[in-house]
Amino acid sequence: MTGIMTMRRRTFLAGAAGSVAAGGFLLSGPASRGQDAKPLPEYVKWKDADALIVHSDKTLETKRGELGSSIITPEEKLYIRNNVNTPPESIVADRDAWRVEFAGVKEPRTLTVGELKTIGLSTVATVLQCSGNGRKYYQDKLTGDQKISGTPWTVGAAGCVIWSGVPLKAVVDALGGAADAVQFITGTGGEEIPAGLDPKDLVVERSVPIGNLDNILLAWEMNGKPISLAHGGPIRMIVPGYSGVNNVKYVKRVALAEAETDAKIQRSSYRLHGVGEKGSPEQPSIWEQPVKSWVTAPLEDSKAGSVQITGVAFGGMNAVASVEVSTDGGQTWQKAEFVGPDLGRFAWRLFVLPVDLAPGTYTLVSRATDSEGNVQPEDTEMNGGGYSHNGWRGPAVEITIA
Amino acid sequence: MTGIMTMRRRTFLAGAAGSVAAGGFLLSGPASRGQDAKPLPEYVKWKDADALIVHSDKTLETKRGELGSSIITPEEKLYIRNNVNTPPESIVADRDAWRVEFAGVKEPRTLTVGELKTIGLSTVATVLQCSGNGRKYYQDKLTGDQKISGTPWTVGAAGCVIWSGVPLKAVVDALGGAADAVQFITGTGGEEIPAGLDPKDLVVERSVPIGNLDNILLAWEMNGKPISLAHGGPIRMIVPGYSGVNNVKYVKRVALAEAETDAKIQRSSYRLHGVGEKGSPEQPSIWEQPVKSWVTAPLEDSKAGSVQITGVAFGGMNAVASVEVSTDGGQTWQKAEFVGPDLGRFAWRLFVLPVDLAPGTYTLVSRATDSEGNVQPEDTEMNGGGYSHNGWRGPAVEITIA
Repeated sequence: MTGIMTMRRRTFLAGAAGSVAAGGFLLSGPASRGQDAKPLPEYVKWKDADALIVHSDKTLETKRGELGSSIITPEEKLYIRNNVNTPPESIVADRDAWRVEFAGVKEPRTLTVGELKTIGLSTVATVLQCSGNGRKYYQDKLTGDQKISGTPWTVGAAGCVIWSGVPLKAVVDALGGAADAVQFITGTGGEEIPAGLDPKDLVVERSVPIGNLDNILLAWEMNGKPISLAHGGPIRMIVPGYSGVNNVKYVKRVALAEAETDAKIQRSSYRLHGVGEKGSPEQPSIWEQPVKSWVTAPLEDSKAGSVQITGVAFGGMNAVASVEVSTDGGQTWQKAEFVGPDLGRFAWRLFVLPVDLAPGTYTLVSRATDSEGNVQPEDTEMNGGGYSHNGWRGPAVEITIA
Repeated sequence: MTGIMTMRRRTFLAGAAGSVAAGGFLLSGPASRGQDAKPLPEYVKWKDADALIVHSDKTLETKRGELGSSIITPEEKLYIRNNVNTPPESIVADRDAWRVEFAGVKEPRTLTVGELKTIGLSTVATVLQCSGNGRKYYQDKLTGDQKISGTPWTVGAAGCVIWSGVPLKAVVDALGGAADAVQFITGTGGEEIPAGLDPKDLVVERSVPIGNLDNILLAWEMNGKPISLAHGGPIRMIVPGYSGVNNVKYVKRVALAEAETDAKIQRSSYRLHGVGEKGSPEQPSIWEQPVKSWVTAPLEDSKAGSVQITGVAFGGMNAVASVEVSTDGGQTWQKAEFVGPDLGRFAWRLFVLPVDLAPGTYTLVSRATDSEGNVQPEDTEMNGGGYSHNGWRGPAVEITIA
């Protein structure tokens, strides 16, 4: 076991009772649900209502205090972000019968999930995070006529989960290898496009660079269970290290191609551009997640004494190497300790720093560094879509110790 | 991502359709439930009925085909073994209020779970396995008057889960350190003992050597969720590497002591002795789990073609170092590959070996070696309680390829 921590005995004996609330655990109770909390949408009725903030029927955020005590996020607590309506439950009635078309390989073919299961098996833990997670911190800084639309996520449009499935590379090899000159891997979601609308405007079809071929998994399980419909079952294309939208749900087609798809969600949405500007293919696509961390506890005022400052940290494409924590808003920093098993470079790690807090006001922040030396910045440069926020200042926690 | 596997293309294209059933995935459907399957007991109604074999209301086994495709076991599929009745649901109504008495430390004290949460946080993945897992393989070899009573588990009284909680060492340090001359750590379960019965005969109270102090976790979460009552919530004493019974549920007292408890479950139960003999304190206690592995797929006959042989392997107190797989009942062996993140030395690892199977009869077995060089034996020496089975011959899978 890693990460055994001790604390000063005297402080513990004096301050234990008051510190209970500081652990942030009380946030999970029914009492913490606001009077005006929206109910869970029907298709995710099985989720943990007390753990989630319902922004809309397609956007559900995990409460901050619900993350940070385990290295994996249970499905019941995991955030939801759907771009279009979820397909009918019927598509998971016979999971092995779902068909995926493979193109851009030497021998194009359609394979069922059942057939894919004979080709290979691997597992990978990844941080699944909405591209707009942290958008609220951009929105809070807008001035004048500036406007960034989209869900005002703070930190909870993210989780860390374990996927099981077949490596895409094994499938491509089984189909004769990649066709010549391919530069991208395009996944197409199985959502139904309502009649009369242009599919190009609505289809969830995302392209990622071919370099991801060795990482991508076509997954049928999440955390040891068949992936729920809400999270992309019967099969989801997992692109480790890439933001949520690139992990195409109910994937029905995987194409190796020379160019990116011209679907709207790729062409103009999820592009990095200035506030008020329109998205276009020349701008950087929202792909790799940058290094990031945030504090998950304590989140509430409490009495003086010992406190376990906890949080999560990840490096996107790189392993996270270290995390520092500050209780004075970034003036001074202390190195936190990672605890628990390391689930690999695409996963997040849980960090803990035990501190003794005397009466006063504290601003808790964390700052991660990845294995390539990339350091989480104080602020992320504003962008018009509110994407890829990773500044450490935004998710600061202000608490008063009495 | 580790463990990308490829296969011979020609075989795949020829044999894919027939190999679907061989993956063992079909075992999970409702159709696989026997007509005489017992229903889930009320206190675990939330479990996945299709994934479990109900031996009795206190003994539920995970179906073999439900393990082996992920590195963690979801709570819904995890086996159940209770020695006595589960306490009432009321004990998890206010989890943080549950009290644990600590004795055998310099400053004995009772702490609530809420207080324990202020002392430290760590996570550990462990194989949780009933001491009698595999008992059926002993029972199958009994002759004459020999008798081993107990649930005839095959391989499914086991799972791999992630725990979050406070390191016991941190609690002991906070309470002034261990008292002098302590040799054991004794955990006492919170089950209610019916009036008129001798508590010593029924209490679930287990002692383990003091050397485990650096490993033990007092856990409140399993797989990122509060531990269910059925699995020992609000708090369970986790002894990594030790068999299930030592991981005391609803722990209400943790005592460092000079001697083992004289409760029956320690004194005479869970002891290694000959068939027909009685248990006694001089015999070895069922503590550390030996190195072990078994095949989880394929489990059914199928057509010729490519097959992913999968399974799980673990080393008990040591990391598992390698696994070999045989398709001819142990005459020849091939090294399998571990896939997915390594959850640490107390966890199991998922292994895969892709093979092409021509028509014929096959006997699939696996043999693990731990980091200390301990090799899983062909058979385990018979013992009267049917404990600690780890022979590779017992769980052999016989399949016919047409």
